[in-house]
Amino acid sequence: MASALAIGERGRGRSTPNPNVGCVIVREGCVVGRGWTQPGGRPHAEAMALEQAGAEVRGSTLYATLEPCAHDSARGPACADLIAAAKPARVVIALSDPDVRTRGRGIERLRAAGIEVLEGVCAAEAGRSMAGWLSRIERGRPYVTLKLATSLDGRIALPDGSSRWITGDAARAHAHLERARCDGILVGRGTWETDVPKLDVRLPGLEDRSSRRILLSSRHPGLVPGSTHPEALEREVRWTPEQARGDVWEVISGVEAIAALPDCNDLLIEGGAQTAASFLAADLVDRLLLYRAPILIGDGKAAIGDIGLTDLAAAHGRWTLIDTRMLGSDRLEVYERARS
Amino acid sequence: MASALAIGERGRGRSTPNPNVGCVIVREGCVVGRGWTQPGGRPHAEAMALEQAGAEVRGSTLYATLEPCAHDSARGPACADLIAAAKPARVVIALSDPDVRTRGRGIERLRAAGIEVLEGVCAAEAGRSMAGWLSRIERGRPYVTLKLATSLDGRIALPDGSSRWITGDAARAHAHLERARCDGILVGRGTWETDVPKLDVRLPGLEDRSSRRILLSSRHPGLVPGSTHPEALEREVRWTPEQARGDVWEVISGVEAIAALPDCNDLLIEGGAQTAASFLAADLVDRLLLYRAPILIGDGKAAIGDIGLTDLAAAHGRWTLIDTRMLGSDRLEVYERARS
Repeated sequence: MASALAIGERGRGRSTPNPNVGCVIVREGCVVGRGWTQPGGRPHAEAMALEQAGAEVRGSTLYATLEPCAHDSARGPACADLIAAAKPARVVIALSDPDVRTRGRGIERLRAAGIEVLEGVCAAEAGRSMAGWLSRIERGRPYVTLKLATSLDGRIALPDGSSRWITGDAARAHAHLERARCDGILVGRGTWETDVPKLDVRLPGLEDRSSRRILLSSRHPGLVPGSTHPEALEREVRWTPEQARGDVWEVISGVEAIAALPDCNDLLIEGGAQTAASFLAADLVDRLLLYRAPILIGDGKAAIGDIGLTDLAAAHGRWTLIDTRMLGSDRLEVYERARS
Repeated sequence: MASALAIGERGRGRSTPNPNVGCVIVREGCVVGRGWTQPGGRPHAEAMALEQAGAEVRGSTLYATLEPCAHDSARGPACADLIAAAKPARVVIALSDPDVRTRGRGIERLRAAGIEVLEGVCAAEAGRSMAGWLSRIERGRPYVTLKLATSLDGRIALPDGSSRWITGDAARAHAHLERARCDGILVGRGTWETDVPKLDVRLPGLEDRSSRRILLSSRHPGLVPGSTHPEALEREVRWTPEQARGDVWEVISGVEAIAALPDCNDLLIEGGAQTAASFLAADLVDRLLLYRAPILIGDGKAAIGDIGLTDLAAAHGRWTLIDTRMLGSDRLEVYERARS
């Protein structure tokens, strides 16, 4: 299952509208098939693994990070039926599918075909890996990650705005990997106007993984929410043709509008302080990526603006550290929003 | 030697003007004597351990975290002579004594008495344990620790100043232990006026370890630098008699004046942001104790004021992480100033 989860990660940021499922088929101790949800959502992980394994599926154990789908669609047959026909001896599943079209019916079909089914193996890990898709299914909005790169004293720039560089190469490369894993990257108006950000993935071999760019702005009447505006950049923010070239941005006018973003499982918030504050104040941040350099800045730009906190006690109990590691001389801390 | 270093820690914050040395005497696998520098500096660790061991010293191995002193004083004979007379077979030393009155002469006397001497065992650890005393001998000023208790985004209080509580019980208890280990605690005028801080050690059994209180202020003409002012508190800052009762403060008018603080090996800076900035701007901070709670505050009071940084590159390479641990749900990070 660990192997299935690992290859399922390959679909992160590319599998929408479908979940980034991983599938591994093992027969007599040998891996005979592997699959993960392909870009755009098809083929499904199970279909890919079954095709690889061919006749070897019979009598094997199939590991899938999500319950196989039970609904036929114009894009292909239901995975539960494909598996039932291929006759593995056993299917091991991490998470059952919350999609109303499946929700237990995939497992029923497998059992009806005489296949042994084991559920709940590595369910927590699978929930984390497919958090974006689960969030969209269960809450109607993407899973939101807020990224901050700060000094030890929580600054993101000098008073004059210069921020190159606070963190080092390894931390910045990791942040680009996080970009590759999400479906959309959002910045606020201030960052958009000041930094002219590209938000692309600058990692060898992953350049094509650059995500949709989303702008949070209620101040530009020429930018209609929901639509893209490659040509409006010059007019609205006086970017030069050179700066605006090739840039396509989706515009939303308020943080609540992320609920309506189509095909976006994982959303990454990259800046700045007011945008971070808006998402935090609305309790719309699920995960915090905190890259910290071993430097002190003192007077400078704060990482987060006003989030409306008036009582320290209310700030506690919200964030749980789930991962920490060194990246060069910087430290990455990953916090998850504690949900009751 | 690890045992000698551990009991040497008992003298931290109390052994001035002498170093907090630890000494363990081992004979045939058994500890026959242990000593550490007593409050006020006498007896020395070696004298205490020798007295405990008595005749058992002969043929033993004596471990000392610092080279035994070679100078007689009105307060007692030289430890090197006491040891030579007691005739251990071997003496193991962590650090040689940088004090001009000893500097190698203690070791010479031991060797002249036919005792085998081994130097440099756990030297780095001993240097850290006696950093305060070494700083005073070598640089003429105390070893300075800056303590900060912040949120993940580097805030020390809400905009209205409320800071109770950012960190939890375990972190606050650890901070009180750090108070017990230093000789003096310094705050700036703003913290002094606003918080009426006691700066005492509120740990069971360590209440008597409360340190001298030092105020950094150039703004109170009624407070003469260097002297103590129990009675001036009411007049100068309008503390009530209740608030001022029993309070003795030493006043310095600038950060450079810490060089002249008598009998102060370890100095702890506790607040606030401008005071922290003054010490950092003068490059007078040797160690950073960073207690971080897993909360976000957003708009609020920053941990550190203007330190005069104009170039991010200049901020790098100054701080090295030497320890990190969880204290309840908070994380402590300890950084040391990298000195070339």
